[in-house]
Amino acid sequence: MRAAVYYGPNKVEIDDVAEPEPTPGTVKVRVGFNGICGTDLHEYYAGPIFVPTQPHPLTGQELPLTLGHEFSGTITAVGAGVSGWNEGDRVAVEPIYKCGHCGPCQAGNYNVCRQIGFHGLMSDGGMAEYTVVPTSMLHTLPDDVSLELGALVEPMSVAYHAATLGDVHPGDTAMVFGAGPIGIGLWFALRGKGLEDVFVVEPSPTRRAAVEALGAATLDPAAVDVAQLIADHTAGAGADAVFDAAGVAPAVATALACVGSRKPMISVAIYEKPLETPLLNLVMNESRIQGSLCYTGADFEAVIALMARGAYDTTGWVTRIPIDDVIDEGFEALHAGKKMKVLVAPTDSPGVDPSGANA
Amino acid sequence: MRAAVYYGPNKVEIDDVAEPEPTPGTVKVRVGFNGICGTDLHEYYAGPIFVPTQPHPLTGQELPLTLGHEFSGTITAVGAGVSGWNEGDRVAVEPIYKCGHCGPCQAGNYNVCRQIGFHGLMSDGGMAEYTVVPTSMLHTLPDDVSLELGALVEPMSVAYHAATLGDVHPGDTAMVFGAGPIGIGLWFALRGKGLEDVFVVEPSPTRRAAVEALGAATLDPAAVDVAQLIADHTAGAGADAVFDAAGVAPAVATALACVGSRKPMISVAIYEKPLETPLLNLVMNESRIQGSLCYTGADFEAVIALMARGAYDTTGWVTRIPIDDVIDEGFEALHAGKKMKVLVAPTDSPGVDPSGANA
Ligand SMILES: [Zn+2]
Ligand SMILES: [Zn+2]
Ligand SMILES: [Zn+2]
Ligand SMILES: [Zn+2]
Repeated sequence: MRAAVYYGPNKVEIDDVAEPEPTPGTVKVRVGFNGICGTDLHEYYAGPIFVPTQPHPLTGQELPLTLGHEFSGTITAVGAGVSGWNEGDRVAVEPIYKCGHCGPCQAGNYNVCRQIGFHGLMSDGGMAEYTVVPTSMLHTLPDDVSLELGALVEPMSVAYHAATLGDVHPGDTAMVFGAGPIGIGLWFALRGKGLEDVFVVEPSPTRRAAVEALGAATLDPAAVDVAQLIADHTAGAGADAVFDAAGVAPAVATALACVGSRKPMISVAIYEKPLETPLLNLVMNESRIQGSLCYTGADFEAVIALMARGAYDTTGWVTRIPIDDVIDEGFEALHAGKKMKVLVAPTDSPGVDPSGANA
Repeated sequence: MRAAVYYGPNKVEIDDVAEPEPTPGTVKVRVGFNGICGTDLHEYYAGPIFVPTQPHPLTGQELPLTLGHEFSGTITAVGAGVSGWNEGDRVAVEPIYKCGHCGPCQAGNYNVCRQIGFHGLMSDGGMAEYTVVPTSMLHTLPDDVSLELGALVEPMSVAYHAATLGDVHPGDTAMVFGAGPIGIGLWFALRGKGLEDVFVVEPSPTRRAAVEALGAATLDPAAVDVAQLIADHTAGAGADAVFDAAGVAPAVATALACVGSRKPMISVAIYEKPLETPLLNLVMNESRIQGSLCYTGADFEAVIALMARGAYDTTGWVTRIPIDDVIDEGFEALHAGKKMKVLVAPTDSPGVDPSGANA
């Protein structure tokens, strides 16, 4: 089968590799679509970062391996001892390997497991025709959720998890800084939680246009005094929650100038270096910065339920490409900012419709 | 009467001013001791910052005015309509003027009132023989709490409030960065909340020695790898709460390297400028930074109750001076780092014992 294999920096090849077969407790999934995310780009341009260079304690795998941790698919075979999952089941895969016994795991926060591993970074992932995963990673996709949407459950769950940490309620005013895929996911998640009053702050006209086309209200920080506008809009109270999905100092400073007292800024960005952060704003306001990482199964289920209600729309920000184009139309187009979200279709076998309709 | 009057930067004079008399709803307090804090130093060296240069909306006062917002004393007269307070009552004064109707005030968080004012910054304060305050500011001092301790209730409440925001419990591991008066107050507050495992991180040998003499375990960040030590000490879990009372970038970076997942760093420092802050630590750990400002009445009551139990000790870090020495032995000695906490005794009238014993 074909697979996008990572060998190290600037080296991903579409190889012909052996099809994996399910071991006890696992299933074989024919991949529908697999998204490329910023983590994959980091591995490609500056890695290996997460991809292990010696056997990983939870997976035993090391480089070279097949990338891909954001995917949907259809079960084609089940391993020994598997019950409750059958050939033909359509699934989204929650790609976390957890240790199960560290403090965070025991508290149910396995997204911050101290030994965390990801399928598609620490083991052969979804950028291939088939992949094999433990049943603990599986979430059922309802019939009315396409495999295209199914591949977006993972990044949308990153955003949904952050929205939940924002402790928001219908009637609240929220702000999202950055209209990349996570910022867009935050907009969908906040709307899904019943918020009507959400501002997306984004300097790029292209990205603003994309999220506006989905129905979002946007602010151009180069054109308006965002903090003053929010102060006026909230009669001085400030926003009930602000989300940093941009990861740059001006966004953080503006976000902290907008957040209300005792309210949170949720950080859901991968900050490449320490940023100049106006901590005095936190003190004067008793506001807080809360970090948000990945998701747990509850986020996957919530996102899938919202997708089934029609709450997510891929128009204008999601592009599908065949696996052979993964370098040029995937990594390089994303790196150059020419695309926002790319889904790779690793197979054109019957049952997977690259148009994104249901299998 | 004598009063330390602030006229502007580098100009505080011991003037002879008229004794204030109580108006309806207020009491006249003969001041026992009044502490000098960092805010006073900022006004003296770089002000006016909080001291208004036009009539303050809540107090009607402006510069020049008498400094002093950390004080204890004895009621000597009560205004019309005052009940429940009598001549001879010994009190600590919670010096906040609040608007009462903004969002934070309505939520009970009047410490972040949008119009907040302080007695001794926005009105004539406690660095004088007498001052007049509304009864809403009064807290009774039990007989076994000295007027010297009473003057420390305000800064100790700043620390206690932060300790409470740290959501700590007996058995937790906590860390305090900075062993100035607020750091020392945090140590007392955390001990008062039943914590046995508290580390105070402080680079200055003098300050380390002072807090060690009170019984604290200290770490010298120049001598040990603090983050590694805490990781080892907590079997990798990290500290349950860390407190930044230092306000400098190395302390913040180390604190965020020590805090456990889903746990807080409480910021209780006045950050003079934005600091390089490793926000990625917050994300990877889902930890948070929570700002803490001042106190409310509940903090005053909790500190006074702990003082009555003997939980606070002034040995080695508190110096008492007469009001005539306020510049040389107060502002300048503190500014030069020669003293840690200075209490001014504005009066030597009978009933106030400058030795710090009870009136
Ligand atoms: Zn990803
Ligand atoms: Zn774990
Ligand atoms: Zn003060
Ligand atoms: Zn108020």
